[in-house]
Amino acid sequence: MPALDPILADIDRDLDTSLERLFAFLRIPSISTDPAYAAECRRAAEWLRADLAAMGFEASLRETGGHPVVLGHAPKANAPHVLFYGHYDVQPVDPLELWETPPFEPRLVTLPDGRRAISARGACDDKGQVMTFLEACRAWKAIHGELPVGVTVLIEGAEEDGSKHLPEWVEANRAELKADLVLVCDTGMWDRDTPAITSSLRGLAYFEVFVTCADRDLHSGLFGGAAANPIRVLSRIIADLHDAEGRVTLPGFYDGVRQPPPEVLERWRALDLTPESFLGPIGLSVPAGERDRMLIEQIQSRPTCDANGIIGGYTGEGTKTVIASRASAKISFRLVDDQDPKALDRSFRAFVQARIPADCSVEIVTHKGSRAIALPFDMPALGAAGRALAAEWGTAPVAIGSGGSIPIVGDFKRSLGLDTLLIGFGLDDDRVHSPNEKYDLQSFHKGTRSWARILAALAEGT
Amino acid sequence: MPALDPILADIDRDLDTSLERLFAFLRIPSISTDPAYAAECRRAAEWLRADLAAMGFEASLRETGGHPVVLGHAPKANAPHVLFYGHYDVQPVDPLELWETPPFEPRLVTLPDGRRAISARGACDDKGQVMTFLEACRAWKAIHGELPVGVTVLIEGAEEDGSKHLPEWVEANRAELKADLVLVCDTGMWDRDTPAITSSLRGLAYFEVFVTCADRDLHSGLFGGAAANPIRVLSRIIADLHDAEGRVTLPGFYDGVRQPPPEVLERWRALDLTPESFLGPIGLSVPAGERDRMLIEQIQSRPTCDANGIIGGYTGEGTKTVIASRASAKISFRLVDDQDPKALDRSFRAFVQARIPADCSVEIVTHKGSRAIALPFDMPALGAAGRALAAEWGTAPVAIGSGGSIPIVGDFKRSLGLDTLLIGFGLDDDRVHSPNEKYDLQSFHKGTRSWARILAALAEGT
Repeated sequence: MPALDPILADIDRDLDTSLERLFAFLRIPSISTDPAYAAECRRAAEWLRADLAAMGFEASLRETGGHPVVLGHAPKANAPHVLFYGHYDVQPVDPLELWETPPFEPRLVTLPDGRRAISARGACDDKGQVMTFLEACRAWKAIHGELPVGVTVLIEGAEEDGSKHLPEWVEANRAELKADLVLVCDTGMWDRDTPAITSSLRGLAYFEVFVTCADRDLHSGLFGGAAANPIRVLSRIIADLHDAEGRVTLPGFYDGVRQPPPEVLERWRALDLTPESFLGPIGLSVPAGERDRMLIEQIQSRPTCDANGIIGGYTGEGTKTVIASRASAKISFRLVDDQDPKALDRSFRAFVQARIPADCSVEIVTHKGSRAIALPFDMPALGAAGRALAAEWGTAPVAIGSGGSIPIVGDFKRSLGLDTLLIGFGLDDDRVHSPNEKYDLQSFHKGTRSWARILAALAEGT
Repeated sequence: MPALDPILADIDRDLDTSLERLFAFLRIPSISTDPAYAAECRRAAEWLRADLAAMGFEASLRETGGHPVVLGHAPKANAPHVLFYGHYDVQPVDPLELWETPPFEPRLVTLPDGRRAISARGACDDKGQVMTFLEACRAWKAIHGELPVGVTVLIEGAEEDGSKHLPEWVEANRAELKADLVLVCDTGMWDRDTPAITSSLRGLAYFEVFVTCADRDLHSGLFGGAAANPIRVLSRIIADLHDAEGRVTLPGFYDGVRQPPPEVLERWRALDLTPESFLGPIGLSVPAGERDRMLIEQIQSRPTCDANGIIGGYTGEGTKTVIASRASAKISFRLVDDQDPKALDRSFRAFVQARIPADCSVEIVTHKGSRAIALPFDMPALGAAGRALAAEWGTAPVAIGSGGSIPIVGDFKRSLGLDTLLIGFGLDDDRVHSPNEKYDLQSFHKGTRSWARILAALAEGT
């Protein structure tokens, strides 16, 4: 295996020019959801293609029906092959007046606590993160003339618009995307000094429940006591969804939920995630989930249920003695492991229906339903990447479950049969999707060094 | 006792001119809540004063600080004395475009089912109802030269604006308002053929509950399972307020609630108020109150609890995976008999507080709290009025509890020591406070005849 140290030294030496490249990329306003920026999206794709070609990748733009995909190949015989996925499109920037500096004029800023950061739309999500991988590849090529593993780079341009055309395109280009493993750099660290590998993405089932009782709003003085009240019906449903121990009461809800292996639990226990550190910053102190689970389990490995919204009756100032005809709530579930959104849909509908009085009616809309995605805990690449991250950051990475979903990861599994390693360097305060998005300079620099190490580790370890 | 028949015959004969008088009264747009109509309110008061004076009352306008009160005296030695209360002001008329005919151009209309009705703002509430009493007095005076009982007429001009100045005015004029009994004509019939005496007015306690959990809105993907959710907390509170039998679970809630006497229950049972007849018209069929109580008890003699409004989290279109920082609900109780709003306030606050997680907070606002007002079931005037109504309508009146409150009735009790007999001829379809308000011609005609009979009965029976 070629030496790593010269590569890391090259990355350190090259930091300023790496930043110049990133800034050039960030100056292109590649907002995918606004048709007015379609040409800018193509310009960003072309910029990437040229950058990949300059590094020696066989690179091209590929049409998808929407914004083009950038594809770059750097095969290597007798070595593992990885497929790196990222996106070159960014979120819209409004409200523009809240930006302290123009979103497409990237610059280095100093944060109040002294940290240095790159400020721009896309600085973190996902241009900055994508460039950590590409700069690592550039350093490998510069020092050793080649990469330690075969690499295919796939950068799409519509992630912020739902990746509408990508699953079909991946399915149609299966042969060309052959690999052993997918790498994604679109997630976060545990904290600014502790790296993380996102080992699972929770699934989501999102319902809206509309309860109708009387066919009109009623005066509580006349009908109070006799007429069913949809707010009471809905409150009963929401209250019944959890028992006193914080468990979700839906029959069969925990089917398919697995217990993390003892070593993972041990590692989590050692992390000692306290209510003070996790809940303190948001003004809370008591974990509200299952009482017999550690806080870290409650937020990572256990499925959850939340009412995300509720409305009914009179909600203005003061009083009105009305019994509403209708009330509604949005209720969602975060799913883990093998929980089946379809089974949950059936169970939830039966649960709600059983709590609707005989003379009332309910409409249940299923907004979303996607399975959780989990990396096998015993996957060899996980150990290799973990060792590489530990070497760079001086502390072992935390395996975290992410509440957010990256649906294309499911498509990689389905279409290509590939597991995905999600490693990213975003921080909680990066204001992703908000004004004044930033990416810590340390994340960019040590993120690049991390990928250089991970590529080496994957060449050895898989 | 002078003969009744000639009086009733006079009322029948005089119906057209009675209507002309009512129409003249209805043409005055005496909207009390809008200062632009202050002169019209005074004009309505002056119209009434002149009408009372023409009948031989000693009549005057009395200043209150708001719209004037009309006061008329017709004393009678060695006879019971009644104080009649009503109001000459009306509700605003908007939305004006929903009126089929102009609100202050009264006319007789024929309803789809053939009934004849008076259409105008105030036709029922309360100008038409007030005039049933005054027309009955006019007939007595016309035939016999005097009334069978002493009468003081008190017609205020700010009932639709909360009767702000009246309690103070009543207290200051106690000597002049001396009487044995108050009569009010501002309530409804059981149905269009069955008269009613409103024997109780339910009290009201109205609260608003604001639950705050985290100090900001949270992403359910990150905090779901660990952070308390105010919608779940509020739903638990609302759900817990009733048990499976429909009873309110607040400790001490039923203290002070009396069981109606057996003969009242017997009469109610005989009425056979069915879910089909009461709930059918609003699209319901199953009484939602205490399971061991008749429907008529649920709406009349039993206290109730309703959530009148709830809001929290994301309530727009589609989905948002938010855990709200705050959610709120409006919760009210209808009180009966001797239930104490102050004790309820304490009990409700303790009940809510006990259901707030240790790291969350709650603010409880008490909007209103008023005791129920009940007529003694054995009051002699009740029997006398009941016999009079039965004679006119061919069926005994129903004693009904009203959910609405007429707060001045409490002041009559407190300031003057007087019970109030609430008898009115409104119907459920009168669209009181709404566009196209009407008053059935039969209600006006037989209402007038009813008062003529009641005055006679009170002279004999008390």
